[in-house]
Amino acid sequence: MAGPAPPPTRPLFVVVGATGDLMRRMLLPALYGLSADDHLPAESAVLGAARTSSFDDASYQAWAAAGLKEFSPYHPDAIDPWCRKVLHYQSIGEGTPADYQNLAARVAKVEADHQLSGDRVLYLALPYEAFAPTIKGLAEAGLNHGPGWTRIVIEKPFGRDLETARDLNALVHTYFDEPSIYRIDHYLGKETVQNLLVLRFANVLFESLWSRDRVTKVEITVAEDLGVEARAAYYDRAGALRDMVQNHLTQLLSLIAMEVPAAFDADAIRNEKVKVLHSIAPVEPEQAVFGQYTAGWIAGAAVPAYRSESGVPAGSTTETFVALRLKIENWRWQGVPFYLRTGKRLGNRVTQVVVNFQRPPVTFFRDLDPDEVHSNELVMTLQPDEGFDLVFEVKAPGQTVATKTERMRFRYAEQFGNLPDAYQTLLLDVVEGDATLFVRADEVEASWRLYAKLLAQPPAPHDYAAGSWGPDAAQGLLHPDEEPWSRP
Amino acid sequence: MAGPAPPPTRPLFVVVGATGDLMRRMLLPALYGLSADDHLPAESAVLGAARTSSFDDASYQAWAAAGLKEFSPYHPDAIDPWCRKVLHYQSIGEGTPADYQNLAARVAKVEADHQLSGDRVLYLALPYEAFAPTIKGLAEAGLNHGPGWTRIVIEKPFGRDLETARDLNALVHTYFDEPSIYRIDHYLGKETVQNLLVLRFANVLFESLWSRDRVTKVEITVAEDLGVEARAAYYDRAGALRDMVQNHLTQLLSLIAMEVPAAFDADAIRNEKVKVLHSIAPVEPEQAVFGQYTAGWIAGAAVPAYRSESGVPAGSTTETFVALRLKIENWRWQGVPFYLRTGKRLGNRVTQVVVNFQRPPVTFFRDLDPDEVHSNELVMTLQPDEGFDLVFEVKAPGQTVATKTERMRFRYAEQFGNLPDAYQTLLLDVVEGDATLFVRADEVEASWRLYAKLLAQPPAPHDYAAGSWGPDAAQGLLHPDEEPWSRP
Repeated sequence: MAGPAPPPTRPLFVVVGATGDLMRRMLLPALYGLSADDHLPAESAVLGAARTSSFDDASYQAWAAAGLKEFSPYHPDAIDPWCRKVLHYQSIGEGTPADYQNLAARVAKVEADHQLSGDRVLYLALPYEAFAPTIKGLAEAGLNHGPGWTRIVIEKPFGRDLETARDLNALVHTYFDEPSIYRIDHYLGKETVQNLLVLRFANVLFESLWSRDRVTKVEITVAEDLGVEARAAYYDRAGALRDMVQNHLTQLLSLIAMEVPAAFDADAIRNEKVKVLHSIAPVEPEQAVFGQYTAGWIAGAAVPAYRSESGVPAGSTTETFVALRLKIENWRWQGVPFYLRTGKRLGNRVTQVVVNFQRPPVTFFRDLDPDEVHSNELVMTLQPDEGFDLVFEVKAPGQTVATKTERMRFRYAEQFGNLPDAYQTLLLDVVEGDATLFVRADEVEASWRLYAKLLAQPPAPHDYAAGSWGPDAAQGLLHPDEEPWSRP
Repeated sequence: MAGPAPPPTRPLFVVVGATGDLMRRMLLPALYGLSADDHLPAESAVLGAARTSSFDDASYQAWAAAGLKEFSPYHPDAIDPWCRKVLHYQSIGEGTPADYQNLAARVAKVEADHQLSGDRVLYLALPYEAFAPTIKGLAEAGLNHGPGWTRIVIEKPFGRDLETARDLNALVHTYFDEPSIYRIDHYLGKETVQNLLVLRFANVLFESLWSRDRVTKVEITVAEDLGVEARAAYYDRAGALRDMVQNHLTQLLSLIAMEVPAAFDADAIRNEKVKVLHSIAPVEPEQAVFGQYTAGWIAGAAVPAYRSESGVPAGSTTETFVALRLKIENWRWQGVPFYLRTGKRLGNRVTQVVVNFQRPPVTFFRDLDPDEVHSNELVMTLQPDEGFDLVFEVKAPGQTVATKTERMRFRYAEQFGNLPDAYQTLLLDVVEGDATLFVRADEVEASWRLYAKLLAQPPAPHDYAAGSWGPDAAQGLLHPDEEPWSRP
């Protein structure tokens, strides 16, 4: 969340894992977009690193340009020159000390050739298992320090549970101090997620109501209609709890529930987020319902069961759906249930937060059944069709005083057109040294702690048909008097 | 605000002033519409009465049918048969006792011919000066009581000031008890005005914020772009304070400010409205700015000054614009200014209430000037384009945390199409015996009391150009730190 002028630095981006899908689909378009819009200084350079030795600079530039033309059709004529000017490639082979020494030498050479300032972003676009050896390899070749600042960006998942997250924190802290570590959760780079803070703290209207005095429950949904796609090898070992709940949903939860920070800076905000997590007892198995999708229909097309997807073991019990009920035991939220839900192959692709407010204590309108008065809701839709809906009651026209539930609507796209890309936002924040939207060491550990019991004793998943909103058992988490899960 | 089934009565509507503009433009379309939609029993009848003896039933039916075809093009084929079946005419000449005796005899005859139930609505569609003699004439011919119920409907203005309103109340109470008296303010029949109650008392979200704890000011605007039109003779004697402020704006004020009534019935609601008026000290001249329009431009066309309008005396000092600052001295509203504004020849035709909420106590977003955070506003638009807007702050997309003021919108027309007519609503309420939307004796007196000092010593009007938003002097009513009057 930096200023609009390009920062006064000419950094080098060293991306380890530079031949992967994340680089091709997300990071290269983000870097290119930032350059094209003059948010990055024109002198920046990118050094891609990966195992393969089948690329040299020229072939890597061609591979990257092809990817950009597919995934970022923005100023297409500028793509080839940008790639040729900015991109380099260096193999790290098997990752021996000599390989990392070669990488370090190449870093110095690229910096000299481009007359860079010596500031470095080390981006680990790697699977979880590769984090530790890569961090060690980079550091032991001296790349944890450079002539300017050095910042390391680590993708999710940061660990597989509390213990592995602690181990990884300990390792990275051996070589980097915490302010140099940027644990990325790309959800935090989304405009609409950042806007949760503005919504709460720039609007007296909402913040005045934002507590157990007026809120009856909060529901957070991150639903996908896609299945496991090409990620079965990773996904079947991770499951929805690790893949989505521990990071994205828990981040949304803490932004919604946190107290007003003392200042708008990285540590003040992250202090408040951690306080929320520490106010929640680790989730017990009876507060959770797991599910796994069976065959079904999505948008009119038959889709297979999870266990029939390519790469998924036949008898897999990995959860593709999680629903949770959390309690935040603090002054603001005691007694207000927070419901979290995520899954693959659900009815829609949607990320949304619904805050339910109390019903009126009395309904004195004649002819009006108290149950006909719905509770007010604030619906924050983070994707797609980003916006806010305030669900409220109006008089239904006519002689009878009947109420009708309607919505006041705001849609980003109608006012602002396309929103900035999350990776652009986050990459620029790294260059700016702004860690506000990144996850701190204690935060990631507090988040894993929440789910330790579930990870130790995962509930058996219930079947749900692809295209449904998850297993019926998820309704059992709700109090019988509550409105059922929303169907966004 | 009655139920949807037609009430179990076959009433007679006796309209005195049946050849006037109100009858032709409003009452006949409302009565016809209620019949056409089966809200009134098919056996109802209407007896028009006025001075002229140039009408008989047939010619009156023809006059009415022509008016309906012009002003209410609804089921046009049914208009002529309805008029022939339902309408009658009786002259009351100079209004002698004999004339009223004839009217009473005719009432009985129409009721017998139509086999009506003996329930009667006496509707005084008359100028203010005619109220007292007509009430006396009707009553002395025995029409204040009938075989069924008898209800009298009295148009505005109910008096010219506190004293004349008291006198009129005393007169009408001589012949009718208060529950039989329906003082009409057609604003109260509008769906959007009634919806103010639903908005407040069916939505915890708004009512929770509805006090000095969160509201900084309330602005009520009833703006017309029309000039005095053909009503100069009446208007020049009345002025905007009598014509609009004492009734419509004061009604809106009390609906916005009132406490939660103990029940949704006529007396419980009117008790709370009267309590608001009694919490306001009579307005002092320094709390008011009067204006009178000069020549100007409306929608691209030159329009004359008020004093140049046909029928307006050359040196008239009648106000065509009023702006007021009111203080409600009760627990809920102490310290919150209520601003009222009305005028002819203003920039737009609009009736709207704007509730301003506090700004955030601190703005800790970096790069953000505190003054850039606007206060939240709830904008209730009563006409035209009826709806609600919630003005709130969002994050402006981009790396900088700048906020932008946006609106969540709800529009009636998008959800409900056309809204019911105010006179239909009110006429049916009279038949139902529901006085909720009518003005009680103590209420009309309390309202006049508010403006007694202004009526006794009217401020000299400031000039304002037609098409502007009133004289600059109106800004002087606001506190310098407040946002200026809205420009709806």
